[in-house]
Amino acid sequence: MADSRFFTVAGPFTLEALVGISGAVAGGEASAEAVFVDVAPLDTAGPEHVSFLDNRKYLDAFQASRAGLCVVAPAMAAKAPKGMALLLADDPYRAYARIAQAFYPVLPPEPWLAPTAWVDPTATVGEGCRIEPGAVIGARAEIGQRCRIGANAVIGDGVVLGDDCAIGAGATVTHALVGRRVSIYPGARIGQDGFGFAMGPQGHLKVPQLGRVVIGDGVEIGANATIDRGAGPDTVIGAGCMIDNLVQIGHNVHLGRGCVLVAQVGVSGSSHLGDFVAAGGQAGLTGHLHIGAGARIAAQSGVMRDIAPGETVGGSPAVPMADWLRSSALLSRMIRRKG
Amino acid sequence: MADSRFFTVAGPFTLEALVGISGAVAGGEASAEAVFVDVAPLDTAGPEHVSFLDNRKYLDAFQASRAGLCVVAPAMAAKAPKGMALLLADDPYRAYARIAQAFYPVLPPEPWLAPTAWVDPTATVGEGCRIEPGAVIGARAEIGQRCRIGANAVIGDGVVLGDDCAIGAGATVTHALVGRRVSIYPGARIGQDGFGFAMGPQGHLKVPQLGRVVIGDGVEIGANATIDRGAGPDTVIGAGCMIDNLVQIGHNVHLGRGCVLVAQVGVSGSSHLGDFVAAGGQAGLTGHLHIGAGARIAAQSGVMRDIAPGETVGGSPAVPMADWLRSSALLSRMIRRKG
Amino acid sequence: MADSRFFTVAGPFTLEALVGISGAVAGGEASAEAVFVDVAPLDTAGPEHVSFLDNRKYLDAFQASRAGLCVVAPAMAAKAPKGMALLLADDPYRAYARIAQAFYPVLPPEPWLAPTAWVDPTATVGEGCRIEPGAVIGARAEIGQRCRIGANAVIGDGVVLGDDCAIGAGATVTHALVGRRVSIYPGARIGQDGFGFAMGPQGHLKVPQLGRVVIGDGVEIGANATIDRGAGPDTVIGAGCMIDNLVQIGHNVHLGRGCVLVAQVGVSGSSHLGDFVAAGGQAGLTGHLHIGAGARIAAQSGVMRDIAPGETVGGSPAVPMADWLRSSALLSRMIRRKG
Repeated sequence: MADSRFFTVAGPFTLEALVGISGAVAGGEASAEAVFVDVAPLDTAGPEHVSFLDNRKYLDAFQASRAGLCVVAPAMAAKAPKGMALLLADDPYRAYARIAQAFYPVLPPEPWLAPTAWVDPTATVGEGCRIEPGAVIGARAEIGQRCRIGANAVIGDGVVLGDDCAIGAGATVTHALVGRRVSIYPGARIGQDGFGFAMGPQGHLKVPQLGRVVIGDGVEIGANATIDRGAGPDTVIGAGCMIDNLVQIGHNVHLGRGCVLVAQVGVSGSSHLGDFVAAGGQAGLTGHLHIGAGARIAAQSGVMRDIAPGETVGGSPAVPMADWLRSSALLSRMIRRKG
Repeated sequence: MADSRFFTVAGPFTLEALVGISGAVAGGEASAEAVFVDVAPLDTAGPEHVSFLDNRKYLDAFQASRAGLCVVAPAMAAKAPKGMALLLADDPYRAYARIAQAFYPVLPPEPWLAPTAWVDPTATVGEGCRIEPGAVIGARAEIGQRCRIGANAVIGDGVVLGDDCAIGAGATVTHALVGRRVSIYPGARIGQDGFGFAMGPQGHLKVPQLGRVVIGDGVEIGANATIDRGAGPDTVIGAGCMIDNLVQIGHNVHLGRGCVLVAQVGVSGSSHLGDFVAAGGQAGLTGHLHIGAGARIAAQSGVMRDIAPGETVGGSPAVPMADWLRSSALLSRMIRRKG
Repeated sequence: MADSRFFTVAGPFTLEALVGISGAVAGGEASAEAVFVDVAPLDTAGPEHVSFLDNRKYLDAFQASRAGLCVVAPAMAAKAPKGMALLLADDPYRAYARIAQAFYPVLPPEPWLAPTAWVDPTATVGEGCRIEPGAVIGARAEIGQRCRIGANAVIGDGVVLGDDCAIGAGATVTHALVGRRVSIYPGARIGQDGFGFAMGPQGHLKVPQLGRVVIGDGVEIGANATIDRGAGPDTVIGAGCMIDNLVQIGHNVHLGRGCVLVAQVGVSGSSHLGDFVAAGGQAGLTGHLHIGAGARIAAQSGVMRDIAPGETVGGSPAVPMADWLRSSALLSRMIRRKG
């Protein structure tokens, strides 16, 4: 179903193969030999397609779907339309992810050094890299194997990229040590000076920013996101972090493993986030905070104090989630009473 | 008055011609044969210039202005300084827009294929296009007539652009079908992967993003704005939408016709906005919402529920505007009483 | 201590020299002839390094530090670990800034015109400039001396840059007059059309944007920040302003001297800020406001009215800081009482 101008489908796969790929259990009226040629959304899928249901908001679409096979939670099985084969999984989105990856595998790039790219003679570029038109690789940079450097992307002097990285078109990476399988999306800015200066009425005095950005394996950094290098210590992005578009990360910030920062989040300088912290869109954190592992921060929150591991907060200034919901409800009741 | 290093003025125009261009009605002490050579702001305009008054905050500037001609609402006519000719219009800003467009028409670009641009041999480029230095056009892309592809902009493989599009310097467009007369400003990012992955403590699993971005005619997309492609369905931007700088639009979002999203707004994945929805700066919408046609969302609002057509909301979490104003006023009274 | 792949250290300096550089006073067990080879953070510094303490949060790190020399406020002197030499300064961060600048001076760029850069034949480029690969300089642009135009940056037709400017990789500058010693970070967008159109159900009508961006000396503009040109008047950025990443500045905005706008701040069109206004991260200002000199705006504030000189405000809608803190505390007490 995906537009062949942009995507190339693999497969087809039998139901049996998809069970193996997804780790899900076959259910419904399914034949192990049934063949599926692609994935598709519930509302446009046909009998030859695999779809999924992960959000109850789409239950109607599920029940009206003509998809031949659908990945669902076991509790949903009874609601499936007649004739639909099922794959039952406790985390249907995760099982679907594996299936979609099988239909649309990430292949190594077609190696190329475009004639209009600029690679400094002192840079080293690993086997199998694709350096697209207008890309620039600076002096002494070290690019791993099978990396894709997008059109007009810029890799600064001395930067190190591990194997299998993808740098989006127009992105810039300086003063950085980047792990393996890191995706940096178009227009992201990694490694520029942090916002460090001594304020004063006689003029603000710039403080040299002498650290780096150190990025772990498997990190994704969204389009037009900005990550400043450290001021002296490094800015550190732990392995497996998912950073959405237009996120701002200040100098000296440490993110643990697997943090998820939704679009337009801002993390001020020198704050430390533990593993698997999640922050909703447009949340902001002031500087020098410690956010415990697994903490959850609601969208648009303004976090001004440390947060304990596993705590969930909301509001600006951010308070425990229950308090925030209570204060919103309370205000709402008060104005209705007065109104 | 505009700096001739950057702008080339057309004209001059007589008052009579400006009446025809603007659809406004001549008023004040005006001669149809009076000639005007340019537009200018109220405070710097002279007798040969056309200016406008649209915001009562500038009434003093209007009354002190030396502009020869001013576009105003009929109710303001009596407040004009002596000797100023007037053009009376119910929507003076709209009438002024037509006049300013006449003085500064958008001309088709001067055709050029810059020597340092890269156009894949399988791409097709329409008549009269200007491909500026360092621009990159990918395989099988289809560029309409009279398009301007700015310096170092990147058009990805398979992308389709309609006639008369302007792609700003350093912008990137991938996985997209773009209508006619679309302006994409410098640094905007269109069509990259959405923020889609199955979270889990064993690591987040990327979900292939298999949709496109479909953009209607006459859309403007601001500098460094980001619009992710769909995950399976498309991301759709209706005709005539105006999207300001640094706006984030997630995967699968649908915008109706003529939506206005002010700077730094964020719209989370799979939300649908009806025609002519307007959202103020830094407003945020969570995912999977339905926002009715003509709804208005105040700046910095946090919208977490569906909004009915024509409703106006404010606050975070967003509530009907009257409630939000009441709760702000109530809090303000309470702290004064305690203080 | 800084990674030599990215930074080149000057020095070494004796304590006596550092007293002269910093304007601080030697204290502790210091010998004027003691020699220091670099700056370093408190926790990684050794006896040959200079460090600083500016934030009480790091008092423990100070007391455990092995730094040979530390810049501190006089009140902290008694808390220094045994054997550490001190430099005492009322503003230790400022004194440290001078020392770090001595160890890591900003040198003029190594002159270069990269073969893949594009410089229009009608542009003028001053002595000692470095034009990196893929950079584009438009017709009639005037570039001062010792400017660095980063890789794939774009300078539009007619733009004027003063001496000693640094334009980051992938940034774009159009319709602008730029002072001396201005740093524009990677991906910043300066001078594009403002968000000006007459709204209407029959379609929004674009208003030509005929002003410029005028930037004073010594300004810094962060990565992926956006500054629109004026609609008729100019957009003006006063000398010495510090603008962080992802900040949005609308058309016709005036910033006085030395304003500090932290990441993701948005300033709507036609607002005027006096000298040395400071706004915390993600704060937003509506249009047509007057913000007095020295006013301070808390992070995430939503400013919807004029602010007097020197006033401090917080909250959304923003109110005097004391009121905002009181209303947060009040709400907090109320929900606890009910809970």
